[in-house]
Amino acid sequence: MPGPKRLQLALFGAGRMGTIHAANIAAHPRAVLAAIVDPNTEGARALAEAFQSRVRSATDVFDDPAVDAIVIASAASTHPELIDQALARGKAVFCEKPLARDLDTVRSLVAAVEAAGTPFLLAFNRRFDPGFASLASRLREGEAGAPELVLLTSRDPGPPPMDYIVASGGILRETTIHDIDMARWLTGEEPESVYAVGAARTDPRIAAAGHVDTVMVTLRMPSGTLVSINNSWRATYGYDQRAEVHGAGGMLQLGNVLSTPVTAWNAGGGSSDKPQPFFLQRYVDAYQRELDYFVNRLEEGGAMSPGAADGLKALEIAQAAEESMRSGLAIRLS
Amino acid sequence: MPGPKRLQLALFGAGRMGTIHAANIAAHPRAVLAAIVDPNTEGARALAEAFQSRVRSATDVFDDPAVDAIVIASAASTHPELIDQALARGKAVFCEKPLARDLDTVRSLVAAVEAAGTPFLLAFNRRFDPGFASLASRLREGEAGAPELVLLTSRDPGPPPMDYIVASGGILRETTIHDIDMARWLTGEEPESVYAVGAARTDPRIAAAGHVDTVMVTLRMPSGTLVSINNSWRATYGYDQRAEVHGAGGMLQLGNVLSTPVTAWNAGGGSSDKPQPFFLQRYVDAYQRELDYFVNRLEEGGAMSPGAADGLKALEIAQAAEESMRSGLAIRLS
Amino acid sequence: MPGPKRLQLALFGAGRMGTIHAANIAAHPRAVLAAIVDPNTEGARALAEAFQSRVRSATDVFDDPAVDAIVIASAASTHPELIDQALARGKAVFCEKPLARDLDTVRSLVAAVEAAGTPFLLAFNRRFDPGFASLASRLREGEAGAPELVLLTSRDPGPPPMDYIVASGGILRETTIHDIDMARWLTGEEPESVYAVGAARTDPRIAAAGHVDTVMVTLRMPSGTLVSINNSWRATYGYDQRAEVHGAGGMLQLGNVLSTPVTAWNAGGGSSDKPQPFFLQRYVDAYQRELDYFVNRLEEGGAMSPGAADGLKALEIAQAAEESMRSGLAIRLS
Amino acid sequence: MPGPKRLQLALFGAGRMGTIHAANIAAHPRAVLAAIVDPNTEGARALAEAFQSRVRSATDVFDDPAVDAIVIASAASTHPELIDQALARGKAVFCEKPLARDLDTVRSLVAAVEAAGTPFLLAFNRRFDPGFASLASRLREGEAGAPELVLLTSRDPGPPPMDYIVASGGILRETTIHDIDMARWLTGEEPESVYAVGAARTDPRIAAAGHVDTVMVTLRMPSGTLVSINNSWRATYGYDQRAEVHGAGGMLQLGNVLSTPVTAWNAGGGSSDKPQPFFLQRYVDAYQRELDYFVNRLEEGGAMSPGAADGLKALEIAQAAEESMRSGLAIRLS
Repeated sequence: MPGPKRLQLALFGAGRMGTIHAANIAAHPRAVLAAIVDPNTEGARALAEAFQSRVRSATDVFDDPAVDAIVIASAASTHPELIDQALARGKAVFCEKPLARDLDTVRSLVAAVEAAGTPFLLAFNRRFDPGFASLASRLREGEAGAPELVLLTSRDPGPPPMDYIVASGGILRETTIHDIDMARWLTGEEPESVYAVGAARTDPRIAAAGHVDTVMVTLRMPSGTLVSINNSWRATYGYDQRAEVHGAGGMLQLGNVLSTPVTAWNAGGGSSDKPQPFFLQRYVDAYQRELDYFVNRLEEGGAMSPGAADGLKALEIAQAAEESMRSGLAIRLS
Repeated sequence: MPGPKRLQLALFGAGRMGTIHAANIAAHPRAVLAAIVDPNTEGARALAEAFQSRVRSATDVFDDPAVDAIVIASAASTHPELIDQALARGKAVFCEKPLARDLDTVRSLVAAVEAAGTPFLLAFNRRFDPGFASLASRLREGEAGAPELVLLTSRDPGPPPMDYIVASGGILRETTIHDIDMARWLTGEEPESVYAVGAARTDPRIAAAGHVDTVMVTLRMPSGTLVSINNSWRATYGYDQRAEVHGAGGMLQLGNVLSTPVTAWNAGGGSSDKPQPFFLQRYVDAYQRELDYFVNRLEEGGAMSPGAADGLKALEIAQAAEESMRSGLAIRLS
Repeated sequence: MPGPKRLQLALFGAGRMGTIHAANIAAHPRAVLAAIVDPNTEGARALAEAFQSRVRSATDVFDDPAVDAIVIASAASTHPELIDQALARGKAVFCEKPLARDLDTVRSLVAAVEAAGTPFLLAFNRRFDPGFASLASRLREGEAGAPELVLLTSRDPGPPPMDYIVASGGILRETTIHDIDMARWLTGEEPESVYAVGAARTDPRIAAAGHVDTVMVTLRMPSGTLVSINNSWRATYGYDQRAEVHGAGGMLQLGNVLSTPVTAWNAGGGSSDKPQPFFLQRYVDAYQRELDYFVNRLEEGGAMSPGAADGLKALEIAQAAEESMRSGLAIRLS
Repeated sequence: MPGPKRLQLALFGAGRMGTIHAANIAAHPRAVLAAIVDPNTEGARALAEAFQSRVRSATDVFDDPAVDAIVIASAASTHPELIDQALARGKAVFCEKPLARDLDTVRSLVAAVEAAGTPFLLAFNRRFDPGFASLASRLREGEAGAPELVLLTSRDPGPPPMDYIVASGGILRETTIHDIDMARWLTGEEPESVYAVGAARTDPRIAAAGHVDTVMVTLRMPSGTLVSINNSWRATYGYDQRAEVHGAGGMLQLGNVLSTPVTAWNAGGGSSDKPQPFFLQRYVDAYQRELDYFVNRLEEGGAMSPGAADGLKALEIAQAAEESMRSGLAIRLS
């Protein structure tokens, strides 16, 4: 790919995630926001105006040979069709998770992506966060020795809307899946067993719908490394995203990012500021870095990571965790 | 009990724990260290000299009506016999854990203690630590709302000697049992299920003996509160004792106590001091406070907490965790 | 100023600060980077290309009625002339400190700005940093009560080049001046006396040139509030920017912003990451926010703060501090 | 001195400090609390009872050849006479600061102590605090390189009673003198100049009496090391005792010791516990360690540090600071 040429990226989805990606593409020195595609034309138009792009139809985008890649930030239900189209037209794909809701579709998508050999990034945001990335690389450099205990904490300030919970399949697929990806990435292993317990504590409608909002998941890795994930859809103090890896040579911890480094001291003690309120603020750097990684890899060629297969592995584990929670049994993963 | 009279306490065991209790009894304004009993007469004599007490035989102590209470800090195998004697002679008991190694003996001891109505303190040290105690009382005052997720971390700097591991029954009975007691105490609930996974990572002899040194235990409480305990017999950075309770109204965390509040900043970042090296330093206040509590309760009369029954409950849960680890199944507790 | 119209900003200076401002102007939804002016045409061209702007001459910019404002990020020696031109042509000014090197010129510039009534922002970056801004607003809301003791720490990782030190007039004008502005801003008072001591510790050439690299400055405010500023041009651990205000009702502290929230624990203790390396990283948000403030104030009309007079006040105090350091006397400020 | 013999220490003063020392002497394995001397016989008797000692007269103590040393914790006005007596009778001295209130008396006491060659400890408590001691020794080992900037913060929760303020001579002699001792100890240098500013902020009676409760003191050391001390007799958040040394090779910081390591997170952020409430709690270890040091040095023989001369040096600097505050001038110290 010639140096001066800017990559043409078409964005599907003008919602919350689409807005983030639109801004990052527009600000990238070697990318162009070539199109915004969204059935909600008003939202699409507003975004196009703000970032000096234009609203186009999906057909138009896929037919345009100048479009190098698509960025999928639309509703999850649209992902399989968009991926299929992109593979068919030879366009690289930057895809928000999930690939699809059901495991069969995910499996066939992974097979299709691998068969096509199209550059494909499954955008698990935490892998691109400077903090998680530093944790992972220092772990790989041996700073904590061989990992023995991994603790992953992800808690959201509040639950998603009920219809979203139902559509997404619940907390294990929606939230825990990020921690599962972290567990795989940080340990470099695939779990041999998973055990999950959960409870519905925040909203009676969640229980009524057969869902939970609070979970603990235990993974056992082949090396003997043990992973404990805890999640909640309630956190009065902001968005709680922490990790801890204890190994033979020490411990590495990732703490929360506070909104400001101001602390107040008075009769009640010393009060720090709160963690960032939610993922939009917490992962602002991660979203920029994942887009930058995508652009760099497109230019350089070669495989992208995490790829479609990582989405499949994480979903398989999340599904086993669901089975564990339902049955009360630990589930053996082959 | 008359004000000016000092309580006469006889100490069994002149080892590591005995030395701590000897010093605390000697320094207590309303207690007297009336005797040191230990088959190792040299150790007993040294302790008696240092704290201006005297070495006596068990028979002599139990026959002496002036002795108000015994403090049991001798080898675990001697606990049942000493407790029986104390109950028979009407002497109050301050007992280091465990009551006994096997569940049947523990059950009969609990029954005997309850039948006798003798004042009895099972000295789970963490309940008397100012940090854990503050965490528990703030939790009870509602500072975090109803508990939803509890994380308990206990890691020792290194494994005990092999023969001690074998004699004690292993990490779940020796180390995890403290966290199990914390889980019961902090939540005010008895677990309805327990799941445990473990691995042997620190020393091949541990694996060879069929033991583990690294565990994760999940408890599910009837309210839906979920507890995750992680333990290791290896920590390069000192004695790691932390707790976190996440509730509907916030989160309470107990961090490590650092050796000094000195931090060094240089090209590598900012380096704090290490946590206290081991329990002797970390729980120095707890040991003073539990002795003081024992003296106060003896003077005031009334039940002591934690009592023998708390030792039984914790052991039942630890034993279920062992069964879970062995079978790979989550164990339902009645 | 009509809503849809984007403000046309011309940037003077394509160096380190110019690059920051170019990026921020280009990314601002209601501003346009209308021109880059720099005698170093190569640098100007590179910047123009990266941010889709164009290189123009100063004359061309000042003659162009479409240019709404100029952003001065060029060498300090060029500031007076550029300000004069902007006032003459009725263009708003965003000016990096200093207004000028000598006090007489600064005084006449302030008089000219005030006479002209042109919108003018003197870009003291810390006022726009989210941390310092939060500290100031919480202080104003009374969280610490009336301020009594103010501690300001600014330490650079290393000294500037020797010729820059000489040209800038030294550490009090170059570095301390930011803390002086903070002292005025946080307390809302003008100092009644200043005392300064200094030393040259980092590089013998600094001493040889009659300069210092390490200073402590004490300000006494009319209310009795006492301020201590410490500065150094050496810090092995990064860019050190802290503030502490102790008042009748408590204390507010602003700590450093660490590069990542990762901490490593091992036999040496717990090591946090380093503070941000230098101002470019530490004040990335501040630069965006000051540009945004400038655009907003231009659109809304009205005075800007800090203004030219704030530059004059700070320079007067810095100059008195120099006199104090030279004479060994505390200097009374009228 | 033969091993088994316990040193006989006579304690003068049964007040707050006397109580601390009584407990530490009584608990020391190689010391005996041989006497309590206090004109307040009720207080003396209570202390004697609590620590199994007895009340005696000063004459009796000084006449008793078995008494090895006296511990002076009585009112400051009694110190000179007690020191004189001890020197005359050849008894070692452990003396709370100050030696005396006026400089002439201090000078003659120092001369007398040096002439007599009697073991003498001036008990500046911070030198024995594990945190300050660690800071000092790590500094000496070169962890921060050559010191360049030293910041010392000491703030009390509230002012002493008015009559005590008047009797003690004010904040510089009462509070700042500890920081002055720290400055000398940490840098290993004697200041060449001192500058002080102060204000009365907490209680109008303090101003009315011509005193201040808030000070900032700057010391310049011959090497160029600069020291800034800040003190207040008001701190809503407890007893604030911090130190920071910035050097060519890094920075060492001593933070506050918090009451517990519990942190609460909720909508207001993360709240740590408060620092220890006051010196009795904060320096509990220091008081034990200074007594232990005194006993060890008495047994081993040899000079003690800090000695009487350290009290003189600190007072000279405090007095120069008073002169600076009064005159508005920096004071040159010979």
